[in-house]
This record gives sequence, structure tokens and C-alpha cells, in this order.
Amino acid sequence: MREHWTLDSDFIFLNHGSFGAVPSEVQAYRSSLCKEMEAQPVRFLARELPAVLDENRAALAAFVGCAQSDLALVPNATYGINSVLGSYPLSPGDRLLVTDHEYNACRNALDAVAQDKGAAVDVVELPLAPSSAEEVVDLVLDAVRAETKLALVDHITSGSALLLPAKEIIEGLHGKGVHVLIDGAHGPGHVPLNMEALGADFYTGNCHKWMGTPRGCAFLFVRPEHQDWLKPAVVSHGRNAPLVDGRTRFQEEFEWGGTTDPTPWMCIKVAIDVMGSMVAGGWPEIMERNRALAREVRDFLATAFSGQDGVSDLLLPSMVSFRLPDGKSEDLHLKLVDAGFEVPVMSWPPNISPVSTVPGGESGRVLRVSCQLYNDFSDYERLMEVLPSLVDAPL
Amino acid sequence: MREHWTLDSDFIFLNHGSFGAVPSEVQAYRSSLCKEMEAQPVRFLARELPAVLDENRAALAAFVGCAQSDLALVPNATYGINSVLGSYPLSPGDRLLVTDHEYNACRNALDAVAQDKGAAVDVVELPLAPSSAEEVVDLVLDAVRAETKLALVDHITSGSALLLPAKEIIEGLHGKGVHVLIDGAHGPGHVPLNMEALGADFYTGNCHKWMGTPRGCAFLFVRPEHQDWLKPAVVSHGRNAPLVDGRTRFQEEFEWGGTTDPTPWMCIKVAIDVMGSMVAGGWPEIMERNRALAREVRDFLATAFSGQDGVSDLLLPSMVSFRLPDGKSEDLHLKLVDAGFEVPVMSWPPNISPVSTVPGGESGRVLRVSCQLYNDFSDYERLMEVLPSLVDAPL
Repeated sequence: MREHWTLDSDFIFLNHGSFGAVPSEVQAYRSSLCKEMEAQPVRFLARELPAVLDENRAALAAFVGCAQSDLALVPNATYGINSVLGSYPLSPGDRLLVTDHEYNACRNALDAVAQDKGAAVDVVELPLAPSSAEEVVDLVLDAVRAETKLALVDHITSGSALLLPAKEIIEGLHGKGVHVLIDGAHGPGHVPLNMEALGADFYTGNCHKWMGTPRGCAFLFVRPEHQDWLKPAVVSHGRNAPLVDGRTRFQEEFEWGGTTDPTPWMCIKVAIDVMGSMVAGGWPEIMERNRALAREVRDFLATAFSGQDGVSDLLLPSMVSFRLPDGKSEDLHLKLVDAGFEVPVMSWPPNISPVSTVPGGESGRVLRVSCQLYNDFSDYERLMEVLPSLVDAPL
Repeated sequence: MREHWTLDSDFIFLNHGSFGAVPSEVQAYRSSLCKEMEAQPVRFLARELPAVLDENRAALAAFVGCAQSDLALVPNATYGINSVLGSYPLSPGDRLLVTDHEYNACRNALDAVAQDKGAAVDVVELPLAPSSAEEVVDLVLDAVRAETKLALVDHITSGSALLLPAKEIIEGLHGKGVHVLIDGAHGPGHVPLNMEALGADFYTGNCHKWMGTPRGCAFLFVRPEHQDWLKPAVVSHGRNAPLVDGRTRFQEEFEWGGTTDPTPWMCIKVAIDVMGSMVAGGWPEIMERNRALAREVRDFLATAFSGQDGVSDLLLPSMVSFRLPDGKSEDLHLKLVDAGFEVPVMSWPPNISPVSTVPGGESGRVLRVSCQLYNDFSDYERLMEVLPSLVDAPL
């Protein structure tokens, strides 16, 4: 499978999760778009782009299970999160809910908005490897208070690599009158998605991680009843531009945030097709194959890391995280790089506040491996041949 | 000169101003960066990128005349404008100042913030072709009221193509205690810039118009005394990430707004070198040559368009705008496209509010031509061979 990518053969690349990796066929397509753009930038960006975006947005809507009118293209999930948090109506005394597994960047956005609006933040502590989905749902719902308005919940957590029971969490929170913003940075192309069935008020997901598009390609799904008041993080022409060809004000406001390179958005349809053709069973097979590999890897690592319980199948996506003995995350990461492995070692818990955290300092840490089509089981066996000797503490 | 670009030979391309056009050598460099990125995305984006951005930011700081520590890279000027307006401390009753030539997207951002914070907006009406710089300065300063806190002023206006006397406006506004945000979307590479000498509190400029970088490349200059409170439109890791290698919190907060394609930022230094090597006299010659061509074109068009006075040399950048008889802007634009000319015809005045404006409707309109190295005088002569017969009203 590795022949579909252009990854450096000097590395065993076990970090699809951070920035993805673009299949060579998608790279070539994007490159041809860039050439076309430079032949006549105005024709490309002003006259031809809108219809091409419509086509790609429609393909994406089919892929993630929603009406295309409820979807807007954004550069990344962080942008989607900032837009929802920044325009959500909050008053002093209102409360926001988040878990302690939330991705640092988005937790920062939440904290900034809370500070700005005088809202309070409740942080639900989740175990690194919960015993069941119910345990997670109960912990989240128990933290709801009368003033809780909005919850920010990861679909797949970054550092701990947990597939959270999003549907059950959303249902439970809705039952308590709390709106839900799902941070699906790692979701699309990683697990099957159906926005309608999931029922979140807002869901933002990256296409540039597991769907194989170039970076700078993501979406924001918003239920129709919230589209009127929601504003993008960057206000531009869309606020008053005439609406044409069935686009909604919501889409018009989000999809032009000043001049940038739109070619990553224009690769959505091709990326879905290219990746989907790599195995006979298409996307369902890709996602199941990657998760099956992750289960194998979890069991394998659970043997090696004594005392570390594996997470349950239901909560395991195509990434596996293990807690390491406390130590210097970045030092270990660089030792692994020197040994030819690209694998992230992250501070745990993930929020690196306060600002005074010293890089290279000792802290809790997790090691995360990703499982994408170009990986096979031998990659993780080879990792385990070197990891024990590189960890600066007994496993 | 046209050999340095890859523009379609079927078109006479007279619209450098809207989206720029990337020289082929810069395209090739960017393409090589993209390939490198896909060989090892994590090495490229997490380990190598920061130092490369430092190098490009330093080259840009030298180019625009400021300390590199007062500069942050952003995707486009609209992002810079939104960030400053969104975090500027405003209270109900405060007033914002803007001219009626302001670019629609940024005017929208201003209106949105004013609405959000309960501030009022004063709009200075400027003539399409002011008789002198003093006239502009006086009109702007006369509009200042006791409650005026911040002015948003174009350096080079978009529709009317005026090089406003920014330094004099800034000095005058500072004398009245008003902070100044300069929208320099068209500034860098178009006119010589010196941030220190100009003295604006905030200046945001695109590198992807007149400097020749790929799109998605711009900067925000902020005077040191404002850097502490200023927040980016998109909050991410930078809010609490450890600071390393001399980067400031201001830069760290702005330069990572979630995963995107950073290669346009990585082309700044190369674009400065590539463009600067096209003529013997480098950038000073490019800018003077383009403005000299614009003066010629203005005089030529002034003859053809009876009753239309040309703008004074001092206020003329490398673009020339003329007011046409009222009519349908988009219809005329498309007729020009059919005739092989890429030249924008824009509604005048530029703010297309209210939302109900019908595309294709009758309105005031201006035609703007740009003058870049790949253009020569014959391009405008050929335009004038067809324009009179395409305008749906007597000139």
C-alpha cells in the first residue's frame, strides 16, 4: 500500500494522526490545479471556483451524511471550533463543559472565549483508558450544571486516542438542554460518519488527516436552526455578498475568508475517490482494516507495557496511545526520530497551561501510534525492538 | 517580461490587483516544498518549519522596514484586519472611522465588530479622484469625534485605486488620539514600505498580490505597545505554547492557527529574490516602472473617457480606475472576458450592502487596470480598441 504515498523510506511513519499524508495521486491532482490557477488566476478563483466548491461540498456531504446546505468548508477544525465558540451567545455566569482530554489548541479557544464573556469552564476528568462507553457518558453528564449551555467534546481524542461515544453523549446532553460542539478533527475518513444520525449541533472535522486531502481542508456542519446567528472567525465579503446558485448565507460567510489557496478544498472529491479505490471494499474496508490493525497493536503493546491496560474495542479508533513512565516527551520523541521512527510522544494531560511550562521538562506522557493503509504490523514490532531501550525509565 | 509568468496567452491580463500572479520560478519552488512536505510531513511541519518561518519573516521584515519581532505571518490581510478589530478594546458609544473607499470585506468586518460591541461607525466620503493628498487628509481628520478610538484606512484602495497619504493620515489621527489600522492589502511590493517610518499602530499587507508569493501569504505588523492585548481571529496552541528561539507570544499566537499549508509563507524570501532579479534595478525599479506605466495609462484613458479627470501622480499607484457610465458591472466584465481581456469592473461605491443587492443590477461602476512587469502599454491600447463598443452607454 505504501506505493500510493511518497513517504520517505528512511522512516517508519507511525504518525498519520498529526498532519495526515497525501496520496501521490491527490498530490498530482492538486499540482495540476495550481498550474491551472496560475494560467488565469481570476478565471480560476472568481469564475470557476464556486461551482467546483459546490461539487466538492456535495461529495463531502454524501461522505459525512448530511445535506450539503448544512456544510461549509473551512481551513481546519480549529477554525470551525473558534467560529462556533466565538459567536455562541454566552452571558456572564454561563458555563461551558469540556473534558480533560480535549486538544490543547481547542481548549485554549474555549478558555479565551470563557474569559472574554465571563463564562465558567467545567472540566470533566476522564480516565486514559475508560472501561466502557457508559463510564464516559456518565462522567460527562454528571458534570452538567443548571448554567451549562454548550459542551465541546472530541469525537476522537488526540493524545489519548479514544473514540468517544459521541452519539450517546450528544443525546444525554441534549436531554439536559446543553448544546454540543463536536471536535471531529480526527473523525472524517477515520470512522464512518453520519451527521444526521449523530445529531450534534455543530461538528467540525478535518479532511486533511484521514481523508487524504492536502492540508487546509476541513468542514463545519451546523444544524439549520443555528445557521442564522453563527458567524465565521474571519468576517469577509460573505456578510453581504449576493447569494447565487443555491448557496446559503451560512456557506457564503464561511467559504470566503479572504484570498487564500483553495486547491485543498478542490481535492475533496478526488481524495475520496483515490483513497476509496485503494482497496476492493472502499472506505468501509479502509476504516475497518485500520481499526483492526489498531486492535492488534493495542494487544501487542499491552503485553510489552506491563501494568498498562488496553482500551476497549468500542473506544479504540485507528490510533493507540499508551502512557509511558514520566519523563521528557520531546527528548524521547527525538531519540525515536534518530532511530528512524516518526511517532509522537505527548505531554499528558494534554493541556500544557500554564504558559510557564518548560519545553523538555519532565511530565506525564503518552506515546501514540497511528494505523493507516501504508502501515502493517511489522512497523509496530520494529518500534518495540527499540522503544524499551530508549525510554529513560523502566517500563 | 511575460516569460517569467505562466499566464494564458489567450488573455490580456490586466488584473494583477485581485489575486496577483505567481512567477514560474516561485511556483516551482513551492512545488518542491510540497513534495518535501509529503516525504515526511511531521519532520517538515513540526521540526523544520519554525526555523524556515523565522528566516522568511526576517526577509520580510527587511523588505517592509521593521523589526522582525513586530511582524507575524497571517494568511491574508482580511485575517489581519479581523484580528485587530476583533480584539481592539471597544465600549458601547465608542466610534470607529473608515472611508467609503474601504474594501467591502474589511468594511464588513468593521460593521460586524461595531454591531457586536455597540460602537458607531463614521464613514468619510472621499472623491473618486481627489485633487490633492491634503484634501484626503483634511476630510479624514475632519471626521474625527471625541469618541473616535480607531480608524481603518486603506493604504491603496481597491476599487478606486488610490494611493492614500497614509503617513500624513496616521500623523494627523495620532495627533487626535486615534489609533490607526492600515489595510495594506495592495501595499507590499507595490510601493516602498517602511513600517517604522509610516508609524501605523497596525499594518496588514498581502505578499500574494504584488510580491509574487503563492496565495495565503500576508503579514500583520503591530507596534510593540499593542502586542500584549492583541489576539488572533483563530486561537490555537500559541496561547500557551512554550516560547522558543526568540519568538514572541504575539508571533506564536498568530502563526499557528491550526493545520494548514504553510508553503506560501515559506516562499517569501524566494519571491523577493526572484522578482527582485527580473530587472537590473531590483524592487525600486519594479515599483517605479509599474507606477510610470500607470501614469501613462491614466493619461491615455483620460483622453478616451471624456469628462473623467485623472488622479494626481502622488495618489496614483500601479493601478488606474475610471468611473464608467452606470450599468451592469458583471455584464461588462464578462463581455471583456469574451473579448480576451481580464479586467475588473466593480460596483461603485464599493460597499455592496444591503444584502439585497441583486447581482447583475444597474449601479455605479469603475473599471480598474493593473500594471505589472508582464504588462506593457500596448495592452491598454488594445483594451481601448474594444472597450467603447462594449460599454452599454455612451462614454
